[in-house]
Amino acid sequence: MAKSNNKIVVIGGGTGTSVVISGLKQNDELDITALISVADSGGSTGRLRDEFGFQPVGDLRQSLAALAQEKEQTWIRDLLLYRFAQGNGLKGHNLGNLILTALQDMAGSTAKALEIAESIFKLEGKIYPITETNVQLVIEYEDGTILIGEDQLNPGNSDGKKIKKISLTPKAKIYQKAAESIKNADLIVVGPGDLYASILPNFAVTGIQKAFRATNAKIVYVVNLMTCFTQTCNYKASDHVKEIANYLGKNPDYVLINSGKIPAKALKLYQESNEFPVEDDLDRKNYKVISEDFVSTVAAVKQAGDALHRSLLRHNNVKLTEKLLKILKS
Amino acid sequence: MAKSNNKIVVIGGGTGTSVVISGLKQNDELDITALISVADSGGSTGRLRDEFGFQPVGDLRQSLAALAQEKEQTWIRDLLLYRFAQGNGLKGHNLGNLILTALQDMAGSTAKALEIAESIFKLEGKIYPITETNVQLVIEYEDGTILIGEDQLNPGNSDGKKIKKISLTPKAKIYQKAAESIKNADLIVVGPGDLYASILPNFAVTGIQKAFRATNAKIVYVVNLMTCFTQTCNYKASDHVKEIANYLGKNPDYVLINSGKIPAKALKLYQESNEFPVEDDLDRKNYKVISEDFVSTVAAVKQAGDALHRSLLRHNNVKLTEKLLKILKS
Repeated sequence: MAKSNNKIVVIGGGTGTSVVISGLKQNDELDITALISVADSGGSTGRLRDEFGFQPVGDLRQSLAALAQEKEQTWIRDLLLYRFAQGNGLKGHNLGNLILTALQDMAGSTAKALEIAESIFKLEGKIYPITETNVQLVIEYEDGTILIGEDQLNPGNSDGKKIKKISLTPKAKIYQKAAESIKNADLIVVGPGDLYASILPNFAVTGIQKAFRATNAKIVYVVNLMTCFTQTCNYKASDHVKEIANYLGKNPDYVLINSGKIPAKALKLYQESNEFPVEDDLDRKNYKVISEDFVSTVAAVKQAGDALHRSLLRHNNVKLTEKLLKILKS
Repeated sequence: MAKSNNKIVVIGGGTGTSVVISGLKQNDELDITALISVADSGGSTGRLRDEFGFQPVGDLRQSLAALAQEKEQTWIRDLLLYRFAQGNGLKGHNLGNLILTALQDMAGSTAKALEIAESIFKLEGKIYPITETNVQLVIEYEDGTILIGEDQLNPGNSDGKKIKKISLTPKAKIYQKAAESIKNADLIVVGPGDLYASILPNFAVTGIQKAFRATNAKIVYVVNLMTCFTQTCNYKASDHVKEIANYLGKNPDYVLINSGKIPAKALKLYQESNEFPVEDDLDRKNYKVISEDFVSTVAAVKQAGDALHRSLLRHNNVKLTEKLLKILKS
């Protein structure tokens, strides 16, 4: 693979994106750029937003940790993901969030903070916020309700209600370097991840469709393993792809979907929250479909603000990387 | 200078020690080890001690920042020294303290936490806590009063009272690697720094006098520029050296003392707090005295818990390094 043909852009936020990155970065020849949603709120991130007024750092932290992870050990990653279990005012905060907040304060912008983090933590790739504007997520439901704040999508809020549309307030332009990386990419990976909380907020900035029209990159969408009760209740694979195409302005070139069996224990826990494996009903006409066993299970580690079952399933990052490299070389 | 003849051990804690380190580390051939007091309390450190129960990290943080500082820029140092000016529960905390606390929690010990920090922040030297025991400083005054906690030495407490003796509770043994570094050192630098708060607590651990008896290192004591109202009120240089010799079990080989003029503006601010230049009354019989202009002034940056004037004066780390290297080579 020529060095000039290996620019991969990963678009998302949250755990799904960090799984993709941690797989891709095992390959030294790839030039990885992560474009990350900055519409998250709630939890440690929400407290910091409220108290400091900077852009949210939660989704950025996860990609930072994935790009910083050393090959032999995981101290930097573990440090960035460390969550204080005690301490007045510290409890629930991620250290990575606090480090990013300090860097935002020192550097004067999120983009510059990430540049410094790149140098301090020897990142094997770049992270750009999708926009430099400090935005909040606006969620419009089919029943006419409008809620503001990504944390409204947490379990317990608006469970099972159909989302009509998301947007950002205030209106926000795409960060210039994010637009350039899309234009210059050879492969763009969208997802997996919470569709309305982490993926689509990236496509709600103005200028992103224009960047996508200007790129020759192959576009891959990775469908989630499971539905999400507060976001994609009853969504089949085609519903996911339709929404992506809707915000992206065109169909992806490839859709990666899991055909592997979800372990019974995980299945049961998800079912208790009304969440189910995403059904493959893709038409295979408007895009290529790669259907494989992508399931990986991880030890369940309950963190404040997480439902326990959320930590059980992941995409298998080795298999995902294998398929992505195949597409890149094709 | 042969690589085998360049092992420098710096003993102390706080700003004085970080000044010495930041000077020495400009010289790539030196093998620097910092042995740091872990008896500090109060402020950000005190809150973390109370809430997490780990050894205090405040003095360690300053040496960590000095050893991490890059040659060309100072992002890592600035990050480790960053102090949150706002945020519920965050306000007043140093980010470096929070990072060290997270590492203590992850690694299970302060010594191991520092080892990881060494790798993450590419430290140009080693830092060892002087003991692995979680100690508090015991201060015994000449009037019979006994106070516990290093923060009792903050301005406003026991101003001007003569200290008879300090010790640690519980009794603590020297950390094995700290003892070895003393034994193997070519040069040991004690001070500058708060005599009873940062320097002598290191000599209150059992086993340190034994380590000093076993070393061939030249021992240098750097006398403070100014007296300290809560610790060394009216102390002349000989009073400082007598106390060092008392705890060390022998005289230092060299005493470095400032002969430079303190700028009038700084002098006035210190005077307002009953603090004065340390008078050179050294006898020049039992140790060599190097008397030079070591004064450096820095921009005053007021930090929570600091008296403003404390940040005005520093030892000039270039001149200090020059003299230390001369002694090392002699």
